[in-house]
Amino acid sequence: MKALEEKILKEGTVLPGHILKVGSFLNHQLDVDFLLEMGKEIKRIFEDEEIDRILTVETSGIAIAMGAAAAMHVPVVFAKKNRTGNISGDTYTTVVHSYTHGVDYNIVVSCDYLKKGEKVLIIDDFLANGKAIIGLMDIIGQAGAETVGACCAIEKGFQGGGDALRKMGVRVESLAIIDSMDDTSITFRKQ
Amino acid sequence: MKALEEKILKEGTVLPGHILKVGSFLNHQLDVDFLLEMGKEIKRIFEDEEIDRILTVETSGIAIAMGAAAAMHVPVVFAKKNRTGNISGDTYTTVVHSYTHGVDYNIVVSCDYLKKGEKVLIIDDFLANGKAIIGLMDIIGQAGAETVGACCAIEKGFQGGGDALRKMGVRVESLAIIDSMDDTSITFRKQ
Repeated sequence: MKALEEKILKEGTVLPGHILKVGSFLNHQLDVDFLLEMGKEIKRIFEDEEIDRILTVETSGIAIAMGAAAAMHVPVVFAKKNRTGNISGDTYTTVVHSYTHGVDYNIVVSCDYLKKGEKVLIIDDFLANGKAIIGLMDIIGQAGAETVGACCAIEKGFQGGGDALRKMGVRVESLAIIDSMDDTSITFRKQ
Repeated sequence: MKALEEKILKEGTVLPGHILKVGSFLNHQLDVDFLLEMGKEIKRIFEDEEIDRILTVETSGIAIAMGAAAAMHVPVVFAKKNRTGNISGDTYTTVVHSYTHGVDYNIVVSCDYLKKGEKVLIIDDFLANGKAIIGLMDIIGQAGAETVGACCAIEKGFQGGGDALRKMGVRVESLAIIDSMDDTSITFRKQ
């Protein structure tokens, strides 16, 4: 998505440890009109697929998932991290490693909001090593539902998670794929 | 908002400890079309005010804030809880007590996304004792910005936080105010 690449170049900052800071529109401040445009693009990319539900993980995935759901008119479910006080009843759960924060955490989805046979699109803000997507696919599998694909706003191609998933046969689409970045330049993969 | 009251009656569950579970559309699963309708109602309520920015707090505030921003075309900033690894530079910070989870936590906003003189609308999913709103007002004050008001989807009127803020002169609007609830009935305040 050309407009997203331009926005990353204009507003993004590369920090040490391969962190791309896009807090001006995606992770802290939310440019909601732009998120809705990204959502329309996700709808266009997956228009050949039947999709019953979008699954994401709190926190930063919620905004882009909501952008997509506004275009696709399907419910979003966001997996919760650890805190189960607000989830009653049976749950699906798995462990995910966060690259950004350097910790393992549980993600939890209530069985009420993910059903057998549903076709589920995974959406997240960043795709780095792919661990969050693998965790969400595990949860979809526990529910007896089907992963239609995964769509991320920004894929760090150089970390390999997206390509590893593609080799496993998962349909992974990213609105922008960064093949290399440092504090002076960002190079996008041609799509 | 009549449609919200009806949705709470239809889909909400009252749990012990004055917890209202509305995970089917607001806290875990997101009914995005309905969130966009709630956003239009928030725009209508505050149409006499000049608003530069919406401020909320992760996680559950993001969806309703995004619904409002989609109607009002202003940026959202969500305060982060504790984790500062992804926020660089100067920050505003304060301590908030969570009624639902029974703990104190820090909330943090980057100084980049809240500026002196801005007129800010606070949005959140629930208003109980009002501690989150007071924390966000503290952060707005630190920035030298102005709190236009606070708008919550669901106010637990019987916990008194909203009325205490109103007595302090804060404009607090809630789309639905619950005056009493137990496991057999929910009574809404007439607005």
